[in-house]
Amino acid sequence: MNLILLERAEVGEGGRVTLRDERAAHMRDVLELARGDSVRVGIVNGPLGLARVDQVDGLSVSMACEFSGEAPARPRVDLLLALPRPKVMKRLWAQLAALGVGRIILANAWKVEKNYFDTHVLNPDFYRPRLIEGLQQAGDTILPEVTIHRRFKKLVEDELDAMCPSGARLVAHPGGPPLPPAAVAQAPRVLLAVGPEGGWTDYEIGLLAAHGFTMTGMGPRKLRTDTACIALLALVNDAMKS
Amino acid sequence: MNLILLERAEVGEGGRVTLRDERAAHMRDVLELARGDSVRVGIVNGPLGLARVDQVDGLSVSMACEFSGEAPARPRVDLLLALPRPKVMKRLWAQLAALGVGRIILANAWKVEKNYFDTHVLNPDFYRPRLIEGLQQAGDTILPEVTIHRRFKKLVEDELDAMCPSGARLVAHPGGPPLPPAAVAQAPRVLLAVGPEGGWTDYEIGLLAAHGFTMTGMGPRKLRTDTACIALLALVNDAMKS
Repeated sequence: MNLILLERAEVGEGGRVTLRDERAAHMRDVLELARGDSVRVGIVNGPLGLARVDQVDGLSVSMACEFSGEAPARPRVDLLLALPRPKVMKRLWAQLAALGVGRIILANAWKVEKNYFDTHVLNPDFYRPRLIEGLQQAGDTILPEVTIHRRFKKLVEDELDAMCPSGARLVAHPGGPPLPPAAVAQAPRVLLAVGPEGGWTDYEIGLLAAHGFTMTGMGPRKLRTDTACIALLALVNDAMKS
Repeated sequence: MNLILLERAEVGEGGRVTLRDERAAHMRDVLELARGDSVRVGIVNGPLGLARVDQVDGLSVSMACEFSGEAPARPRVDLLLALPRPKVMKRLWAQLAALGVGRIILANAWKVEKNYFDTHVLNPDFYRPRLIEGLQQAGDTILPEVTIHRRFKKLVEDELDAMCPSGARLVAHPGGPPLPPAAVAQAPRVLLAVGPEGGWTDYEIGLLAAHGFTMTGMGPRKLRTDTACIALLALVNDAMKS
């Protein structure tokens, strides 16, 4: 953890916080913090700050936090992801939050197995702690907004414009041309669509193209969904900085 | 699997191959191949090809392979990686092979725990099947060369030049400038060094700099080793194509 993330309700008067959970154990046993030490903190969807540790014992850590005025900017990339199998999705939550995405839009697609939607991995009780873990790794506070969509056509035709009204739209597809860095760099936001293991169908690619998505590819190698997501998000983030 | 990889010794006269292991099960149960179907094949460190399935039963799959003349080119990126903890390294093997690296040079560093070197995850019996899995995913045949180095100084001073004699050298370090795409694009090969979770020490950065490594970074977010490796390899691969 490069940051201890707090819920707003955990912060008391004068910035006083007492933790008793695995964050306290981490501060005590891994960071080996003692009275008087400082540690970076943040409020979920709120500002970053610094805390002074007041007391550490076997049960709890107490500290006094001071926060900067403003929350960090929301990451400018959103991800539309055809739901991968639960084992892969389980590993992706923390990595996506660490890389930084504004939204995680999980969608059905022809080659997504329907029972993937029944997994506990899609339960907020499961994924929220993993998103927090990724934010604590990366040093960010902005929790990705997660939505789950069982109807692909309805998502693309009726729902996507409200969620992602402006910016560039890219769909990863084998054989697509490399990322157009200039187009991405100038966009206020980028929405990146990544397909299922077996790829998008022609119908799905057509529907996405009709709704403003441009195809992009990463060369001839076929990558697993999680590897492809991380690689593509790295490329888009890099292009947006340039 | 987007490719069935074969050992050279498995290919008999006239390209005849009979498989009885998990590749046979995959061809039968996942790809649902039957007599007369075609499937993409390759020989480890050898050429790609196409096979015609001759016979499928509960125990085995027999096929006749034809191979193209030449093996694919070795990926132009090599990775020098401070050994991550076994759980992370375990997941990385297949992903690194899928992304495509010529060499995986696993190194000690000040912030690498010494017992990480004792794990079975570094045993060729463990990692070779995972590299093969990554190659089968990506559609490549070229197995990364793996070496393990317990002495960082000796590696950098005495061994690295023989393994990676020419090309650009980059070391990932927080706060480093973005990748210089032009320098990378013109290099015959790129050697990328990725540090341990806690980062390189000043001494290590100095030693790498004295041996031709230029610092590069990916912005303010701190990433886990596996996420950072994938993201950086994607950026280097992309820069080398441009």
